[in-house]
Formats: sequence, structure tokens, C-alpha cells
Amino acid sequence: LMAARASYITGYAGTATVLAGEQFGIPLYGTMAHSFIESFDDEMAAFAAFAQSRPDNLVLLLDTYDTEAAARKVVALAPRLREAGIAVRGVRLDSGDLVALSKSVRAILDAGGLSDVTIFASGGLDEDRLAVFTAQKAPIDGLGIGTSLTTSSDVPALDCVYKLQEYAGVARRKRSAKKITWPGRKQVWRSYDADGRMAGDILGLDGEAQSGAPLVEPVMQDGRRLRAAPSLEDIRRLARHELERLPERMRRLEAGATYPVTVSDELNKLGAEVDRRIAQMSA
Amino acid sequence: LMAARASYITGYAGTATVLAGEQFGIPLYGTMAHSFIESFDDEMAAFAAFAQSRPDNLVLLLDTYDTEAAARKVVALAPRLREAGIAVRGVRLDSGDLVALSKSVRAILDAGGLSDVTIFASGGLDEDRLAVFTAQKAPIDGLGIGTSLTTSSDVPALDCVYKLQEYAGVARRKRSAKKITWPGRKQVWRSYDADGRMAGDILGLDGEAQSGAPLVEPVMQDGRRLRAAPSLEDIRRLARHELERLPERMRRLEAGATYPVTVSDELNKLGAEVDRRIAQMSA
Repeated sequence: LMAARASYITGYAGTATVLAGEQFGIPLYGTMAHSFIESFDDEMAAFAAFAQSRPDNLVLLLDTYDTEAAARKVVALAPRLREAGIAVRGVRLDSGDLVALSKSVRAILDAGGLSDVTIFASGGLDEDRLAVFTAQKAPIDGLGIGTSLTTSSDVPALDCVYKLQEYAGVARRKRSAKKITWPGRKQVWRSYDADGRMAGDILGLDGEAQSGAPLVEPVMQDGRRLRAAPSLEDIRRLARHELERLPERMRRLEAGATYPVTVSDELNKLGAEVDRRIAQMSA
Repeated sequence: LMAARASYITGYAGTATVLAGEQFGIPLYGTMAHSFIESFDDEMAAFAAFAQSRPDNLVLLLDTYDTEAAARKVVALAPRLREAGIAVRGVRLDSGDLVALSKSVRAILDAGGLSDVTIFASGGLDEDRLAVFTAQKAPIDGLGIGTSLTTSSDVPALDCVYKLQEYAGVARRKRSAKKITWPGRKQVWRSYDADGRMAGDILGLDGEAQSGAPLVEPVMQDGRRLRAAPSLEDIRRLARHELERLPERMRRLEAGATYPVTVSDELNKLGAEVDRRIAQMSA
């Protein structure tokens, strides 16, 4: 449910999670299941029955038995459906070599006069597969992504740890091996270049005068929210705006792009001060 | 919460998730936080204060600043605590080279007359790190595992898909590329060798007469559970029993061990039958 919401924020068109549509107002998408087709003795009969139940948004699943044979069945069925006032909107491919199949299915549909029928692909997709689709010019019009959306396979765990930075008005830091923290109450200032792209951050102490836009702002005070939560559409717009402001090198799938972050003199000074204090502790 | 329950089933001694202790009756463990120590101006003072609040189960965290220096503080503090009737039960290492540190801390504790104080290790541990601890004879008595317990980093997603096997009394199968399913209502029979270890399974149709213990049993009927849920302790015992029955080669961390699974003649026959039916569908 939360993944459906998060995906919508980052730019997905909608979700197949019906409850997310209801709870968050996210557009609902969805096609037929393999099991629906298997429950019929005949694939063509399954397509025809599904068309009757979804006349306004008909997407037919092609890969239950033989994808290309199913595409030919769609071509054969389309005129009959048209007579009944039903248009095939799209077909879905969910297994096999999606690049090759999308091309052969596109050819079958086009030859059958169905060039306005879109091709939707799903089945274990992730950003690397999508890059292959683009590079190989696969004629895929829409994508369904599930597993890779809800699981970060390359970075499966996000380690979040609470670290004390200040206590009783005194800056604190942890100094264990490879886990040194910056002490004190901090702010981050972000600069943008002439194109409006992010150019670099300064990490410093709250209250310093630094150039750039401060990123940290209070959202709770005395146990209460300071402002109402933004709407889902506002969050989505903000996410899009922020993505547009990322430097081009940080929008690539490949790792290795860096981003300049400077630690302010004040913060460096405080770190040294806390270190001196720790060194003076009882041995 | 569910990870705490699952870990207890598989043999963990307990959990640091307090709510899991309350809800499931799982033994609770836990030590002090780095932030607790940082909130004091002096590490020794933090240890002494924590000893007062946890006199019966005192485990001191050593790696906030300097692990070996902290171990020497424990040695210095222990006689004072003993006078107050408080015994140091253990120390915890949460960062750095845990093999080297466990050995040096063990030496410091032993030299200080604290050979009964146990060493507890935590911090990004997984089964591979534990194998290293064993191989290098690290004197670690207890382990805290978090991130790697709740995330399967090497297999981050478990793809579970509903596949229709039978409908209206007729066996069904999906035949899409590399995703062919076995049709029909099935049973699995498991055989054991003379040592009681699992020797192999037969996958066949429900109702066949096969040797071995049938594994699939109905748990729901007409929307109702057929039996009460087993207790957590019973589940834990069963998990232990089943782990003991695994062949030795399947208890290794390394991949590559295989397990014999045979498909019965009856099931093979039904598969061919369904294939013939699919082939006869309208083209």
C-alpha cells in the first residue's frame, strides 16, 4: 500500500493495488490474470468473456500459452468486438524475451489493422531492463513493475541509526571506528547553478550564515505538527521538481557520480572541541 | 515484530523488540545505547549510572569512543560495583574488527579478574561474519543480529505467484516461456534415511499411493481453520526438529547442494494430457 503511494509520488501513472486507489486517490490500472484464461477451455473464449466484462478498458494478456498465437487471436477477435462496440485498448506481455516479443506482437497487430492497440510489458522488470528496452527500441508503450518496486535488490537494507548530537545544551559525538558522527545541531545549505540544477551543499551548524537555501526545517514542535501535511499531488509535484534539479550526471543508472558537500569551519571547530573533551575523560 | 517472532522460531534466544516480548512471550534482551553514554561527560560515569539502573542484568557497551580503554574502565569499575552487590554480566562490542577486539577485550577482562564476564557482539552481522568468528576462534559468547535478520540481502525478493492448477474439476497449467506449472491437485511424499535425515521427495497427484510421509495437509475448510494454531514453543520445537533432519550438505552456508525430487508417472501423464488439450484449442 505504501509502495503504491511512494511510486505515485515518484512519477508512476497509477497502481494495481485497489485499496491504494481508494485510500489515496491514485489512478487504478490492471489487466486480466493468467488464472482467468486458464479457467476457460479455450483462450479465445477467455478473451471474448473478458471483453464483455471490461468493454471500456480492455487489455488482453497474451503469454499464458503462446504469446504470438495469442496476438493472432486478438487480431481475429477484434472485428467481432468492434461490431459489439468494444475496442481492444492494449495487450500485455508478462514473460519471455520481451524485446523480441514486443516487436513480433507489434508486427502482428499492425498487420491486422490494430496499430492503435498498445503493448504493455510486465514480469520482473527493473531499471536495468528498462534501459535495455530503450536501447533496443522495443515498441513497449506501458510498463508494470512490482517486485523491483517494493524491494531494493542492490541495496536491500537502509541502515538508519539514531545518533546523539547534543545533550543538555552540549554537543556530543560518537568516535567508534569508522562510525564518527558530526556533533551539534546542524543545517544544510544547498546551492544551485545558473540552470537551476543542484551545485553543492554546505554542512554546518544551525545559526551559521552560509550561502544557499537551508534544507532542514522544523516540522514538529512540542509534540505537534507545525503545518498540515501537503497533499499527495503537491508531494508528487515537489518530487518531480527536485528530480529536474538533479545534475544530469546524477540521473544516470550507473554509480560513480559525486556531489560536492563541504563541512563548514564552525562545524570542524566544534568537532575538534568535542574531541578534546572526550580525550580529557577519566581513563 | 514478526521478524522477532520468526527469529525465535528458528532458534534465536530472544529479542530486543519489547513489544514482541509482551505479545509472544519471547525472552527480552537488550543493552545500553551509545547515546546514553554520550549524554554523560564521562564514560565511566555512564557505566556506573547504568549499573545502578540495571543491577541484575548489566551489559556495558564498549565502543562509543575507544573499545579497549572502555574495557579497562570496566575492570576498574567492577570492584566498586561488587561492593554494591552488582555484577557485570557482559560487555558489548558494536563496531571495529570484532575478531581482534573480542580477543583483546577478553585478555583485558581476564587479566582484571573478570573471566566470567561474557562478550556480546553486534553491528552488521550476518551468517558469513559468524562463520569468520568461528573459524578465527573469536571469544564471542553472544550475538545481536538486526539488519541481516530482517533483510535477505542475497535474495531480497521472494516471488510468490498464485497459479491456477485446477478449475471446475479439470486440471489446468500455464505454459508461458520458462514458467510452465504442473497441473492438478498435488501431494508431496518425503522419505527419510536410516539416520532420520531427509532423503528425497516425490511430487505427485493427491490420492496416489506413494511411499513416504505426505507433507500437504488441509488447514482450512469452508473458510474455517481445522485445528487451533500451535503454540509458539511447539512451532519452535518443530523448526528445530526439521533443521536436524536436513541432510548435512544442506546445512552448509555455501550454495550448490541438491536434493532429489521425483515427479510421479501419474503427474507426468496429466501434464501431457493438459498439453494435448491446450494444443487442440482454437488457433
